[in-house]
Amino acid sequence: MQLIVQKFGGTSVADASRMKAAARRAVDAHSAGNRVIVVVSARGKMTDELLELAYEINDNPSTRELDSLLSTGEQMSSALMTMAIHSLGSPSVSFVGRQIGITTDSFHTKARIVNMKVDRILEELSKNKIVVVAGYQGVDENDNITTLGRGGSDTSAVALAALLKADMCDIYTDVDGIFTADPRIVPKARKLDKISYDEILELASMGAQVIHVRSVELAKKYNVPIRVRSSFNNGIGTLICREVMEMEDIVVSGATVTKNDAKITIIGVSDKPGQAAKIFHELAKENINIDMIIQNISAHGLADVTFTVQKDDLSLALETTERIKKEIQAKEIVADGKIAKLSVVGIGMRTHSGIAEKMFKALSDEKINIQMISTSEIKISCVIEEDQAEKALNAVHDAFELDKE
Amino acid sequence: MQLIVQKFGGTSVADASRMKAAARRAVDAHSAGNRVIVVVSARGKMTDELLELAYEINDNPSTRELDSLLSTGEQMSSALMTMAIHSLGSPSVSFVGRQIGITTDSFHTKARIVNMKVDRILEELSKNKIVVVAGYQGVDENDNITTLGRGGSDTSAVALAALLKADMCDIYTDVDGIFTADPRIVPKARKLDKISYDEILELASMGAQVIHVRSVELAKKYNVPIRVRSSFNNGIGTLICREVMEMEDIVVSGATVTKNDAKITIIGVSDKPGQAAKIFHELAKENINIDMIIQNISAHGLADVTFTVQKDDLSLALETTERIKKEIQAKEIVADGKIAKLSVVGIGMRTHSGIAEKMFKALSDEKINIQMISTSEIKISCVIEEDQAEKALNAVHDAFELDKE
Repeated sequence: MQLIVQKFGGTSVADASRMKAAARRAVDAHSAGNRVIVVVSARGKMTDELLELAYEINDNPSTRELDSLLSTGEQMSSALMTMAIHSLGSPSVSFVGRQIGITTDSFHTKARIVNMKVDRILEELSKNKIVVVAGYQGVDENDNITTLGRGGSDTSAVALAALLKADMCDIYTDVDGIFTADPRIVPKARKLDKISYDEILELASMGAQVIHVRSVELAKKYNVPIRVRSSFNNGIGTLICREVMEMEDIVVSGATVTKNDAKITIIGVSDKPGQAAKIFHELAKENINIDMIIQNISAHGLADVTFTVQKDDLSLALETTERIKKEIQAKEIVADGKIAKLSVVGIGMRTHSGIAEKMFKALSDEKINIQMISTSEIKISCVIEEDQAEKALNAVHDAFELDKE
Repeated sequence: MQLIVQKFGGTSVADASRMKAAARRAVDAHSAGNRVIVVVSARGKMTDELLELAYEINDNPSTRELDSLLSTGEQMSSALMTMAIHSLGSPSVSFVGRQIGITTDSFHTKARIVNMKVDRILEELSKNKIVVVAGYQGVDENDNITTLGRGGSDTSAVALAALLKADMCDIYTDVDGIFTADPRIVPKARKLDKISYDEILELASMGAQVIHVRSVELAKKYNVPIRVRSSFNNGIGTLICREVMEMEDIVVSGATVTKNDAKITIIGVSDKPGQAAKIFHELAKENINIDMIIQNISAHGLADVTFTVQKDDLSLALETTERIKKEIQAKEIVADGKIAKLSVVGIGMRTHSGIAEKMFKALSDEKINIQMISTSEIKISCVIEEDQAEKALNAVHDAFELDKE
């Protein structure tokens, strides 16, 4: 007898008929002799509608009240899903986060789980019931309702799977699995059957929105196998798991391109120790995250410092650098919001060489100029011109033959 | 410093602008130096929409799951109301039933409050906050979410007012107060400034839907003054309180007519002891409530037994009586679904005579036939033909000059 956690996202429970289809999957797994826990998100656009209403009432709503408001979406789904399972003739019971002792810290709208009491779940599972859990929520130590932030239901599902040592955590969503690249941009993109935690973490942090970074981190920590699969067909999806030997034969698993960044160049900084530190200290004080940094030393003893920030932070980053321009004796500050970041990811990079050259050549063949480069153990990223993003992604996808098994 | 409980019904919190108007009332009362507790219902048609969705998924939904589903409506309202109060610059915090320890029995969808822990409310009130409570809900001793049934938010408000010895419990709704009769039927109907618990109990149980019977019973038990008033104007509404001397001068306070009943006559029952008992025993076994009963003994030693039941129960009541027809040696069973029940209510009846005659004469003058009569200490009810209901109500309203102070 296996223990399976099934998580259904908003599109998978959007209306009565989808709710029933999801319930059918839970009942099928249960009838096949498994113990089943179902974790649900809020229906379709529910969360967005509630947020809209909240902001209509108060343009800076209390995060504590937002959490109480938003957690109702998952609560509704959990009750409705349980009714749907009942209508298929199987025993089931729903719980909100608090009822199964999901305690979190008190950072409203982005709380982290600190504890969970699984007695009640185990009790109901032992009665052969399908246990349905409202995802995304918990309570803090003072019994205030908290939510886990975007992707929070994934986190709820993985945390339950980890604690109960589930055999599988199925994440049902509206795509067939994880692809070698975004199929809307790369028509030849291929669904992966398997990918490692590390690779998906790099891909997810770069905007592949299928599964949330936090839940993958958690899954990696506790070695929970995750299967990302579609609610709308019977495909096997993509298994996210610990890396295995065979994976290393595949050099590059996927490629992404994002347009969330902007670039700032500070020209002619005097080349004295501590100037760069000064810049990034001031930016850190404003809570601005820096991604890539390059510094060139010119012949005249002056340096150009280039770095990327989230587009949302661009104006604040510009203000901040303009403020210290004199202090660091910089000549000029130039901003560029029209950039894209192209990345290839693969754990095979650890043992294979020549990946960077192959990527640069693919771009060069397409006459795409590389503005910045950054690398990690399993990733290479290049900053390029924004309007070349799609062409570049396809070129790299072709160069690494990602469409082929 | 007074403690005021304000309850806002579904129409009073239906959208952002009404929510803000309700918040304004709470803030005004708070700014005037009062301690304020706000109890909210679900927005507008929220509860009905959720019920519809539930029945689309399961035509016999679990009551436990229904309670978890429906309680979200009030939870949303409580968070939104708190945000609205914040937007007016006043401190406020929301609680769902469980967070203030509202424990109930386990009769899902119609639970009764058994306990409440008010420490947390008192703590927040002492910090000068407006405390907003999600009405209609609690949890049972096993931490399952329960709801209090229709009118449950009124009950939540009155229970809080009772326990905290509030100086006033304001029930904000979409009418100006309690009227001498339904103004949609009786154009001359007049709003009452004051009415006793006993009178409103009789009126409410007869279909005057302004406030729920259970909450008035609770208010009477703990002597909580209730003011029923409009969310949409500044009228003083109607005060519901313990009866005072002056009230006895007013013989009749109000009149109602309902069309919820049906009449069954069992003709020619053998006049032996225990026959009536047998009939009503069988009906009770089917959980059918009987309202009025009349028995006539004919010259031939046979009895006709007539009684009224809720229209919803008519077919079940007919089946039941048909089943025992032979046993009680009845000749015939006749049903009439086209009746109305006209009632006049007034605590002055206790000390005044001639009320019944005046009522009967008013009906007789209009050529309205009285089919059944029942009386209590402060009420007289007559069953009449359904299509004479409106005419009869106006006739009685005129006869007792209810339009005059």
